Amino acid sequence: MEKIKFVEVGPRDGLQNQTESFSLDFRIELIERLVNCGVESLEAGSFVSPKAIPQMQDSEKVFEALKSKAVDLSFLVPNRKGFDRAVTAGVRSIALFTATSEAFVQKNIRMSIDDSMRVFEEISREAKDRKMRIRGYLSTVFGCPYEGRQSVTSAIELTKRLFQMGCDEVSLGDTIGVAHPRQVREFWKDFRSELSVKNVAAHFHDTRGAALANILATLESEVRIFDGSVGGLGGCPYAAGASGNVASEEVIWLLEGLGFETGISLEELLTTAAWLETHLKNPLKSKLYRSAPKHLYYHKV
Amino acid sequence: MEKIKFVEVGPRDGLQNQTESFSLDFRIELIERLVNCGVESLEAGSFVSPKAIPQMQDSEKVFEALKSKAVDLSFLVPNRKGFDRAVTAGVRSIALFTATSEAFVQKNIRMSIDDSMRVFEEISREAKDRKMRIRGYLSTVFGCPYEGRQSVTSAIELTKRLFQMGCDEVSLGDTIGVAHPRQVREFWKDFRSELSVKNVAAHFHDTRGAALANILATLESEVRIFDGSVGGLGGCPYAAGASGNVASEEVIWLLEGLGFETGISLEELLTTAAWLETHLKNPLKSKLYRSAPKHLYYHKV
Repeated sequence: MEKIKFVEVGPRDGLQNQTESFSLDFRIELIERLVNCGVESLEAGSFVSPKAIPQMQDSEKVFEALKSKAVDLSFLVPNRKGFDRAVTAGVRSIALFTATSEAFVQKNIRMSIDDSMRVFEEISREAKDRKMRIRGYLSTVFGCPYEGRQSVTSAIELTKRLFQMGCDEVSLGDTIGVAHPRQVREFWKDFRSELSVKNVAAHFHDTRGAALANILATLESEVRIFDGSVGGLGGCPYAAGASGNVASEEVIWLLEGLGFETGISLEELLTTAAWLETHLKNPLKSKLYRSAPKHLYYHKV
Repeated sequence: MEKIKFVEVGPRDGLQNQTESFSLDFRIELIERLVNCGVESLEAGSFVSPKAIPQMQDSEKVFEALKSKAVDLSFLVPNRKGFDRAVTAGVRSIALFTATSEAFVQKNIRMSIDDSMRVFEEISREAKDRKMRIRGYLSTVFGCPYEGRQSVTSAIELTKRLFQMGCDEVSLGDTIGVAHPRQVREFWKDFRSELSVKNVAAHFHDTRGAALANILATLESEVRIFDGSVGGLGGCPYAAGASGNVASEEVIWLLEGLGFETGISLEELLTTAAWLETHLKNPLKSKLYRSAPKHLYYHKV
């Protein structure tokens, strides 16, 4: 069986877009439960200002509580200050965030893309010296809420720069969930004519209900790393009430059913989603979760 | 551009699974609006007992109000009595319903599959004499809530019988939305080795969020007729809170984006969904609708 690497982003990308406040114990338990499902790569937190994003405060303590686990716990660092906190905490894996859209980067981290890349190049040099793992996020690849459709060329150029600065993996994101399977097919075709996808991840949102179709279209290329958020945790900040990250359990159900090996237990993931939901104000948006466990016997195809 | 035939099932399959009561005027206006979107084939009502399914009472009046439209208005007839009502009303297009699952047919129409087929054969003979169009529905093709996974063989055999008795079209349904893209691929491969899919429709539910992926997988075969329900109207009677019929606007968005011609306006469909929602107790489940019109400029790929 061909293997797929799955990266769980719920504990950072998911929680950050929820309106509840979460205790440190809850955040740690969520990650522990996901690790027990078989997840080996997680976005575990971020080193941002607790005033800007209170959900992510004390990410140092999240790492401290979990650092003995034999999994990749990645922490987002938006800038130099965040990186210094990561170093002090002793984290071994960081994530950097930029986007193909100038307007989107400006609104999110108040820098131009070029300035953000220069900051990241400096951070990356030091991170590599410290033998840290680096994951680059490239957002708005298929479309931006401010600029509209994005060119494949800019995704290719920025991915190249992210690898050149030392990223071990680059995750290309359909940040607002507007990608269409046809666009996805054409994107990977163009992308692969310039770059290998060996260390490239695909990060889809289910805003239009097309995430699984887009993953199916992506699998026609050689991309074999996918992101997801348990229960579809997170929502979409650009369309109230809409879905955000594709639900991890839907991704695992799709992939395992297609014959790929993810190492993750779908049943455990659904149990984790059920536990998670008891901590939330609103029901999780994951359709697979909402229809389970009524027909759980169907999850295996 | 290759054409796709789209069949809108919201006014019958959708409304029937809602808990609200709907006025005759509303039902007629819903169909009128859908026709104005460009829809040419609709499941417009059914001739069932108004005690059993009050949402479908007075379907005669629905037909009377709309019979001058140059579209295919189909009415479900569950039995001889329903067929007689259809004849009296003067409808020109009927739909018959059976399933691959013995338990499912028994629970739904209180007959064995064989008995239902004999009743339908008698009805079909008379319908053909009267030059009526017949659409056959074959449900639970990919799975049944009572019996679990279904064999492709039974779908093939029953489809053959439905065509033999005079059906002009047969719609194969993933009634509870458990189909997986891999199962779908294998299904159509086996099915097509025995039967042409020229007049075969695919009817998917989005219970697990996989409807668009399943349509994408189906398009790899030569199936070119798809069903959907505006706004995802209807829900799933087998899993409370879960999605039911795939949303028409998601199907049209997918198909038009892939380069198929459906003749249906996505913008008008979204406007119809918005109007429809004002008549419902709960928000529509269609993800595309929920995220529109914020990024409407993206609907064209």
